Amino acid sequence: MIPCLSTKDKAHLAYLQRLENRLDAPDAELVRQVQAILTAVREEGDAALCRYSERFDGFAGPVRFLEPADCQAALARLAPDLRAALEKAAAHIRAFHDKQRPEGFVLQKANGVQLEQRLLPLKRVGLYVPGGRAAYPSTVLMNAIPARIAGVESLIVATPPDAQGQVNDMTLAACAVAGVDRVLLAGGAQACAALAYGTASVPKVDKITGPGNAYVATAKRLLYGVVDIDMIAGPSEILIVADGDANPTWLAADLLGQCEHDPQAAGILLTPDAALAEAVRQAVIDQAAQAPRRDIISQALDRYSAIIVTKDLDEAMAIAERVAPEHLELVGEGPESRIDMVRSAGSVFLGPYTPEAVGDYMAGTNHVLPTGGTARFFSPLGVENFMRRMQVSRYSQEALTEDAAAIVAFAQAEGLYAHARSVEIRGEG
Amino acid sequence: MIPCLSTKDKAHLAYLQRLENRLDAPDAELVRQVQAILTAVREEGDAALCRYSERFDGFAGPVRFLEPADCQAALARLAPDLRAALEKAAAHIRAFHDKQRPEGFVLQKANGVQLEQRLLPLKRVGLYVPGGRAAYPSTVLMNAIPARIAGVESLIVATPPDAQGQVNDMTLAACAVAGVDRVLLAGGAQACAALAYGTASVPKVDKITGPGNAYVATAKRLLYGVVDIDMIAGPSEILIVADGDANPTWLAADLLGQCEHDPQAAGILLTPDAALAEAVRQAVIDQAAQAPRRDIISQALDRYSAIIVTKDLDEAMAIAERVAPEHLELVGEGPESRIDMVRSAGSVFLGPYTPEAVGDYMAGTNHVLPTGGTARFFSPLGVENFMRRMQVSRYSQEALTEDAAAIVAFAQAEGLYAHARSVEIRGEG
Repeated sequence: MIPCLSTKDKAHLAYLQRLENRLDAPDAELVRQVQAILTAVREEGDAALCRYSERFDGFAGPVRFLEPADCQAALARLAPDLRAALEKAAAHIRAFHDKQRPEGFVLQKANGVQLEQRLLPLKRVGLYVPGGRAAYPSTVLMNAIPARIAGVESLIVATPPDAQGQVNDMTLAACAVAGVDRVLLAGGAQACAALAYGTASVPKVDKITGPGNAYVATAKRLLYGVVDIDMIAGPSEILIVADGDANPTWLAADLLGQCEHDPQAAGILLTPDAALAEAVRQAVIDQAAQAPRRDIISQALDRYSAIIVTKDLDEAMAIAERVAPEHLELVGEGPESRIDMVRSAGSVFLGPYTPEAVGDYMAGTNHVLPTGGTARFFSPLGVENFMRRMQVSRYSQEALTEDAAAIVAFAQAEGLYAHARSVEIRGEG
Repeated sequence: MIPCLSTKDKAHLAYLQRLENRLDAPDAELVRQVQAILTAVREEGDAALCRYSERFDGFAGPVRFLEPADCQAALARLAPDLRAALEKAAAHIRAFHDKQRPEGFVLQKANGVQLEQRLLPLKRVGLYVPGGRAAYPSTVLMNAIPARIAGVESLIVATPPDAQGQVNDMTLAACAVAGVDRVLLAGGAQACAALAYGTASVPKVDKITGPGNAYVATAKRLLYGVVDIDMIAGPSEILIVADGDANPTWLAADLLGQCEHDPQAAGILLTPDAALAEAVRQAVIDQAAQAPRRDIISQALDRYSAIIVTKDLDEAMAIAERVAPEHLELVGEGPESRIDMVRSAGSVFLGPYTPEAVGDYMAGTNHVLPTGGTARFFSPLGVENFMRRMQVSRYSQEALTEDAAAIVAFAQAEGLYAHARSVEIRGEG
């Protein structure tokens, strides 16, 4: 069960070290297996894709896509409250991401130089959606809606069907709500390879996003550079900083929400209030016993979760900054007033009525977030991740004359004489 | 020497295929060697860094940094015209990149929901600068100035010194002009590892940017996720689309400028005008014979360069889009008027007085660009690459009540019962 540590005796230091090392190096045997799949699909195309689909998913037959009409039919079959939830979430996600649309600019100088930055949508994007018993329609919305707002022309979902070629209705309904163009019935590293290299049936995409098992994650890592990918995702975590005013049963519920994802997930509470720490610990134990996913939860609580009593709130904020959590809840007047100290977190949730689950489904912010400490440098998924910048320059004859000496001096100092020559030659008439 | 092909007989198709395959898969033996260096530096810190520095660069002794005063001294030693060129380039780079600074937003809803996107600079960035005989002060400016505009607090350059611990004066002078904080006298995969993992002497950074040899490129690829990196860079290319009005000797000079970088570089001319094609081919031959770096140039012309005569300008533009070149020159009324057709290029140069060298040194646009066809999905380096987005959400009690049913329905449909519970429990008082 979740350990209760204190910064007074430095008991937390070994824990933080362990947490930072949670992301293991990629397994060499897995890399070898995935590389073989990628090479086979690159060389043999559809034939290899179908062979691996049959081997891994038990789904035999030619490459198959579902079309928008299939997704609309799934949406029509959905229970009304689920359909309403999907559509409400989609509207909120649209409202937030609409504000993210980046804009270009033109810089016009007096001497006739014009420099421009253009923002362009990617043309084709593949979105991986895990199959199996679990369905993650929220992931479809969180990836597909920003892509659509960016202006991506072709958005293909890839998801492994069951042996009968069936896909979860919620997933397809989310594709309908988000406006996905086609659903490729294939999964695993083979689906990623087909999207990255293209086959006779599968168009080559520019970027692959979305979560997946270790095969998919390894495939995306290896394909980075052949296509763009969203991020290197690891196990999930929440870190809560709270003061004595916080409601312990609510905080416990938020820790459990994170822990039910994965035995490797981490729920962390930092507070200077020892009584709150103890109350949360007790509430965690009580609630975990009742939770439908208690097997996963208790592993996650044991392995990477902790309650840490800090000297004060500033120390708690400093530890939060070191952890750089995917999800950060600040609860209570003291923590909330310290929001401007936060530099390294994926998504921050302020106050007692903003449990992380709000961000997972409904607030409209993205739930595809940097994990495992990568919030030091990675961002939440957003519209700009489906666009690219392009520079456009135009020099006038006057401007080139003006800058020629500096360019020639600089290029020659770098030993790049043909660069210098390309400027000089234009002055020779 | 550069082949002259025509789309009429499909002779260009095999060439384009060969160009696309120019980026080989990483060499397994190289990956193994680099992985061993990374592991050693991670485990042994400074001791391993010094051991590899001595082995690879012949530079013995403890870990050493140069400080801003050393860089200022190098700047003071520079010839006046070179100093002026450096400072002019820096001013132009600042002017363009100042306009790139992204801004956050706040979305305030009537029911008390507040959603925010904050833009935050990365804290520490490492910039790799190759050593050896070649000096690339322009690369220092192109990386360091955007980082400084982003607000990065600590900017460390890593560059391998010679056996006497000396670094090229131009490189140090560029560090002074760009405001680099410290220069780590170390190179190769070992310097990248020290920056990514941190050692007793070297602070751990959040991102590593900058070019390097195959060891550095492989180290960056393997460290992606431990830190962020700028991009997976390959050999460089230019593609020129020109019509009959273009000056053939100028175009030839631009092709040579690209080809002098690297035997793997590619210079490509597309034109519907067969006479222009022939005139450029002749000018390439004439100029290559005179070029100081003719050995590299003639290899690059032989291996991956081509002049292709197209049916018309639209066909030329379609081929350019397929190649997705790092540098794209559009020269002549017809090509320039087609700029809005361009979706996939790193940097575009318009008109006869905008040779690529202008962008390499002086225009102010960035010269760190996506290569080898990755301009389909990667962008030029910019200010946003040294910042991250962070989401901040706050729900009111009213808003949570309003959205509770939808969140609970959605979470339960995904089988995430503890997520649902964290919302329900807040309604139970």
